[in-house]
Amino acid sequence: MEPVLFYGVPQGCSFGSIVALEWLGKPYRLCRMEMMEQPWDARFAKVNPRFKTPALLTEDDETLSESLAILLHAASRNPEHPLGVRHGSAEADRLHQMLSYLVSDFFAAFNPLWVLYDGAAGIGPLADKGVDASHQELLLTVARTDIAEQCAYLDGLLADRQWLLGERSVADAYLAGVGRWVAYHNRNYGLFELEGAYQNLAGYLRRLDDDPAVQFARAIERGEQPVGQGHFKGHVSLRELESRLVA
Amino acid sequence: MEPVLFYGVPQGCSFGSIVALEWLGKPYRLCRMEMMEQPWDARFAKVNPRFKTPALLTEDDETLSESLAILLHAASRNPEHPLGVRHGSAEADRLHQMLSYLVSDFFAAFNPLWVLYDGAAGIGPLADKGVDASHQELLLTVARTDIAEQCAYLDGLLADRQWLLGERSVADAYLAGVGRWVAYHNRNYGLFELEGAYQNLAGYLRRLDDDPAVQFARAIERGEQPVGQGHFKGHVSLRELESRLVA
Repeated sequence: MEPVLFYGVPQGCSFGSIVALEWLGKPYRLCRMEMMEQPWDARFAKVNPRFKTPALLTEDDETLSESLAILLHAASRNPEHPLGVRHGSAEADRLHQMLSYLVSDFFAAFNPLWVLYDGAAGIGPLADKGVDASHQELLLTVARTDIAEQCAYLDGLLADRQWLLGERSVADAYLAGVGRWVAYHNRNYGLFELEGAYQNLAGYLRRLDDDPAVQFARAIERGEQPVGQGHFKGHVSLRELESRLVA
Repeated sequence: MEPVLFYGVPQGCSFGSIVALEWLGKPYRLCRMEMMEQPWDARFAKVNPRFKTPALLTEDDETLSESLAILLHAASRNPEHPLGVRHGSAEADRLHQMLSYLVSDFFAAFNPLWVLYDGAAGIGPLADKGVDASHQELLLTVARTDIAEQCAYLDGLLADRQWLLGERSVADAYLAGVGRWVAYHNRNYGLFELEGAYQNLAGYLRRLDDDPAVQFARAIERGEQPVGQGHFKGHVSLRELESRLVA
């Protein structure tokens, strides 16, 4: 049976895993999770007891979570593909380094803003406390400093190359998902304009926006009919997956 | 030439990479970085332009950063070792998942406390703003909620096993480094007592504390003469490494 990727909306980092599956070109299905609907369907505990997306149900009905692990798994299934991973190579080291940077420091720079976002929706660590102006200013200061540092680093890398590692990799797929958070939170909280300050990164994200797999993932998130290359075999629900979730 | 691991003090997450190198048992050298001395030696930019530890200078004089990438690299050099990684296996998937979780969500849960810590030392995002009591309370609330969530997850995992993945892996080495942050920040900021709330995790960290490689890494951090198994070939300075840092 095809693997099933569980993705979260809105603004899930799982967006990048959809892009990677499209790039890699093997059949797969999707299962949609509305992240702000609390509590989540309890059946999801068998997929990921931490209740996070992305998660993958593999062809062998094993469950796997964490973007980095899912992306390496998908790339490993297809080592002859240009996006495949050759184990033990210097290229694999570079990919591990870049993916790890993106899922840790880059991702985490946005955490204070998700605390604000969740707090406004009455969930997360500020659910009881509420979000006042002084809290918002502090968390914004911390996030803005950190996000700017991460953008400056990536902007420097992209000064002399089209893709993060020179050649296209699943790390670019991941950044297609989380890179959009700069503009998203700039609209919400007034961070900074990416276009002016970090032109290489801004240009890179614009090129990614035009990529057919990114456009496909965007249509999926919006609930529209996506235009793909036929690897996507349709949505499936948690209820329909119950027999595969035996763990 | 032996690989060189650059580790940071105090309380560096690079502690885990020292433990892994001891467990894996191949010759290596160390280079010490005092993280609170600002600015760092400019020569370190050739090792890691992001000025973070751990970083590795490999036998082939390639540089590699990010704990996850360094740990996978070290484990891959020695696939027949019990801590080795077999590419494409379900065990490799599990290791990627666990390492990614630890370097992202577990690590990042402490970020608000490092902002406070840095702010008190006049560096980081609160260097200009200063740290007042209301800021401290907010960042503590966010961190305490998040750290408790991560401890609860690991505590549940460790209810029926001795090591994170059942068998010992480099993920345990990493957690030997960052797991001690719970007690460290509890002393500084009054988080919660690990012993009472999360007994499985507390017991696991106590067992790790007694591990010879963990005791070795602790002696290294303290600048004491470590008792090791002879894999460690001594410290080396950035100046001595200049000829190997050609990039």
